[in-house]
Amino acid sequence: MQGLMQDVPLTINHLFERAEKYFGHKEIVTATGDGTERQDYAAWARRTRQLGGVLDTLGISDDGRVATFAWNTARHLELYFAAPCTGRVLHTLNIRLFPEQLTYIVNHADDEVIFADRSLLGLLAPLMGTFENLRHLVIMDDGAGEIPDGLDAAGGGEVRIHDYEELLSAAEPVEWPEITDEHRAASMCYTSGTTGNPKGVVYTHRSTFLHTMGAMTVDSLGARESDVILPVVPMFHANAWGLAHAAVATGASLVMPGPDLSGPALAALIVDHRVTVAAGVPTIWMAVLPELEGADTSSLRSIPCGGSAVPRSLSEGYREQLGLPILQAWGMTETSPIAAVCHLDSDQRDLSVEEQAELRTQVGRITFGSEARVVDPDTREPIPWDGESSGELQCRGNWIAADYYDDPRSSESFTDDGWLKTGDVATVTDRGRITLVDRTKDLIKSGGEWISSVELENEIMAHPDVAEAAVIGVRHPKWGEAPLACVVRASGADPSEDDILGFLEGKVAKWQLPKGVVWIDEVPKTSVGKFSKKDLREVYDDALMAD
Amino acid sequence: MQGLMQDVPLTINHLFERAEKYFGHKEIVTATGDGTERQDYAAWARRTRQLGGVLDTLGISDDGRVATFAWNTARHLELYFAAPCTGRVLHTLNIRLFPEQLTYIVNHADDEVIFADRSLLGLLAPLMGTFENLRHLVIMDDGAGEIPDGLDAAGGGEVRIHDYEELLSAAEPVEWPEITDEHRAASMCYTSGTTGNPKGVVYTHRSTFLHTMGAMTVDSLGARESDVILPVVPMFHANAWGLAHAAVATGASLVMPGPDLSGPALAALIVDHRVTVAAGVPTIWMAVLPELEGADTSSLRSIPCGGSAVPRSLSEGYREQLGLPILQAWGMTETSPIAAVCHLDSDQRDLSVEEQAELRTQVGRITFGSEARVVDPDTREPIPWDGESSGELQCRGNWIAADYYDDPRSSESFTDDGWLKTGDVATVTDRGRITLVDRTKDLIKSGGEWISSVELENEIMAHPDVAEAAVIGVRHPKWGEAPLACVVRASGADPSEDDILGFLEGKVAKWQLPKGVVWIDEVPKTSVGKFSKKDLREVYDDALMAD
Repeated sequence: MQGLMQDVPLTINHLFERAEKYFGHKEIVTATGDGTERQDYAAWARRTRQLGGVLDTLGISDDGRVATFAWNTARHLELYFAAPCTGRVLHTLNIRLFPEQLTYIVNHADDEVIFADRSLLGLLAPLMGTFENLRHLVIMDDGAGEIPDGLDAAGGGEVRIHDYEELLSAAEPVEWPEITDEHRAASMCYTSGTTGNPKGVVYTHRSTFLHTMGAMTVDSLGARESDVILPVVPMFHANAWGLAHAAVATGASLVMPGPDLSGPALAALIVDHRVTVAAGVPTIWMAVLPELEGADTSSLRSIPCGGSAVPRSLSEGYREQLGLPILQAWGMTETSPIAAVCHLDSDQRDLSVEEQAELRTQVGRITFGSEARVVDPDTREPIPWDGESSGELQCRGNWIAADYYDDPRSSESFTDDGWLKTGDVATVTDRGRITLVDRTKDLIKSGGEWISSVELENEIMAHPDVAEAAVIGVRHPKWGEAPLACVVRASGADPSEDDILGFLEGKVAKWQLPKGVVWIDEVPKTSVGKFSKKDLREVYDDALMAD
Repeated sequence: MQGLMQDVPLTINHLFERAEKYFGHKEIVTATGDGTERQDYAAWARRTRQLGGVLDTLGISDDGRVATFAWNTARHLELYFAAPCTGRVLHTLNIRLFPEQLTYIVNHADDEVIFADRSLLGLLAPLMGTFENLRHLVIMDDGAGEIPDGLDAAGGGEVRIHDYEELLSAAEPVEWPEITDEHRAASMCYTSGTTGNPKGVVYTHRSTFLHTMGAMTVDSLGARESDVILPVVPMFHANAWGLAHAAVATGASLVMPGPDLSGPALAALIVDHRVTVAAGVPTIWMAVLPELEGADTSSLRSIPCGGSAVPRSLSEGYREQLGLPILQAWGMTETSPIAAVCHLDSDQRDLSVEEQAELRTQVGRITFGSEARVVDPDTREPIPWDGESSGELQCRGNWIAADYYDDPRSSESFTDDGWLKTGDVATVTDRGRITLVDRTKDLIKSGGEWISSVELENEIMAHPDVAEAAVIGVRHPKWGEAPLACVVRASGADPSEDDILGFLEGKVAKWQLPKGVVWIDEVPKTSVGKFSKKDLREVYDDALMAD
């Protein structure tokens, strides 16, 4: 028996229309080099509809890929909506990818136009000749950088260069076409792995609508009209964790940080604009915390943090100084990205400070709307939910990728029954709360037993004389493979190997202790700021062979 | 271009599995005649799966209608999920319908089984012979009432009588079948109008999933794991406003009030169980307020109220006594029902107490996921959003009905372009905030101008000597039609007509003043507690003709 309810496509256009109709009076603030620019959603919505007209004028195909190469700004938000609301596909280019990766994804996605911040043109200019199908480059003047020569040196024909504001002022606002298929592509984002070419995830209107609605639920990020949201996480990667969409959908005010993501700049934005939600990766919050000392942070209600494991000491630092611990969340490009959020359960809020801090090292439960399972890598059976057994985390749901765009490697990442293999190793408590143990590729197998590199790193980074640490598995004459700690000393500190190893005693089992320590200047990072251990493994693979 | 995200049907089964997998430790409390019964979601989920087995054993068709005739209890919640999770269709029978309406809907829906509370069998027994296709009656022992004779006097063949607990204890828990089509019927509810036969709304898995997710967003009801939810609104009508589903989905604790909906009983449940959200119609909250005097109500975070206009004085009474005004919401059977919720905008929270109270007489904005428009009844054009012009409120969205079940009257209630005609007259502010002026059929047209009966009622009910008041349009020799106030005096008070009319002076325009007052013992109510003015109009239609 079929039901008799209306069947209205779930589209990004609905999000846009909420801001346009109901929240025209709310503001978007964008930080620029020398101050801030403000506009309200009414002006933003009008400009976004004009931008729809620009895409028509430029002759972008009905489902053409519209690429962006930009910081978090109000203009970037115009592109976030004008592309999908006209049926086109937003493609956010990660400005931190290697040049050859950028060339690959622009060509692979078949981008017809790139909208680029002027301050980023220096990165783009040398690559213009490699873009095969590009026809337009639209420059967004963000007040910094030069316009280099040779931008029109296209690979497959002439690239026409435009100025964003000139195009916009010549365009009329358009009515959106009706998006009748909620499975229509809305946007693309490529992964930022360290090996091989990036893989393309293609979000649908449906997936973005549901992911946004998820971000509005209390036990996820709880986005709401009264929020003032600072998305430090880049709009050029993984949808800025859904916060840009959620702000528009709920009418929350936005504070766009622009290019300056330094601790002092972000701290000033939080305080000056009474920010309620500020989301970023751990390294961001490490830099911001000291800058908030003595400041009025009473507006903050949530500090979502993910991208890599949130060190317990960082979350506790925020709790002690601000009265607000960090809200750990987990996800990846393939999960839109919000897949798990670590709120304490109501009965856990009575636990001791220590116990609560320990619980916050979890990533929490899979969010409503998605499903998670953790399976033994060998047997493929679900592991026991005992908080100790570990296995690979797999996900299923409407905002989880089903496939990569035109990519033969897809089969490696999805199970036969259609679940995403996340590549994360996890344990699960009896309540379904997930702790990430490691990436499958970073686990260390020593003497037949698995050792979590992440757990060791977190313990080492709690040492006051340590700035950062990465633990890698390297060859070992006796154990086959063994953990090696690559440690960055804190400024002015000079810890010894014995200091580090002694600090770990009693915190991890003896057989899990690193078999050695090497001192490094910094931990190599991926384009999105995650530890990249591949390079360390290459350099130090023989470091323990002399033992 | 199609997107590449997973396409997982949006089903009620997902809600169930959240409670089963993650919140087995959370509790459902059911009030009984002589205390409370408790069970946790783990036990509830197991019983619900057993109930699925019972439906199989009874031979209920794969998409058979499973009717309930019950109070708000944990057992009713088992039925809420066992029916749709096995692919069947839950049909909640409104225990307050007239007997002939019950006969009509049981037969019209083709109910195969009724699950009835023992305490309600007295209402059902005389009708058993009129149910044409009924094959099973399952009695749920709620500790009250007798089992009358003649229950098996079926209309179309033998009705077999069962005991719920006996059936359950003999059944094994079942795996749910896979619901592959999210548009599959999940449940039915008939409207409770005062004229003609009730009309059937058929909810889908998709509509219920999305409506539930909506109830979890902050700017709607904001259901969350830490909630303790008391749904005073009946599960037998309009899905208990989505709170039963939302509690299961979020793992919120539930307090089920059972049959005793008196002020003292509800007040005791709120205090004893540290309820955070309690939802009911205005008459419920009128009775509860005095009982909460001096009680510890610090657990309450929200008191959603709808079904009929929330008198300003009632909301202010809660604000003054509890520090928590009522949260006005609006919806109807056809809207699942949550369609609008009246949260103040962030910048309205700085307004004066008076101004805020005035804003709370609005029903707020249409909730995310649905659309609203207000059109001139004659021209069909949208009215200006000026807070004064009024027109008919129409809705569109995935949890709004598209049609009535097998009913020739459907065409009256939906526009050519598929929007629901709500029958409510509304104004809209420049921010899209809606105020209900009246039902289209209760508007009073006096001397060519429209007068809102609801506005007059609210003003009159603010008089301390008035218990209740209904304003109706009756024949008038000069004005064609004119407002007549039908007033119930407060206990022990004896106001005069001049007292009432004098009280209104300066509050409404002079030409809108009622042309007379009649004193009645109570305002007639519909089966769901709304004012039913049809009877009053019949009795008093000539009351002003002597003027």
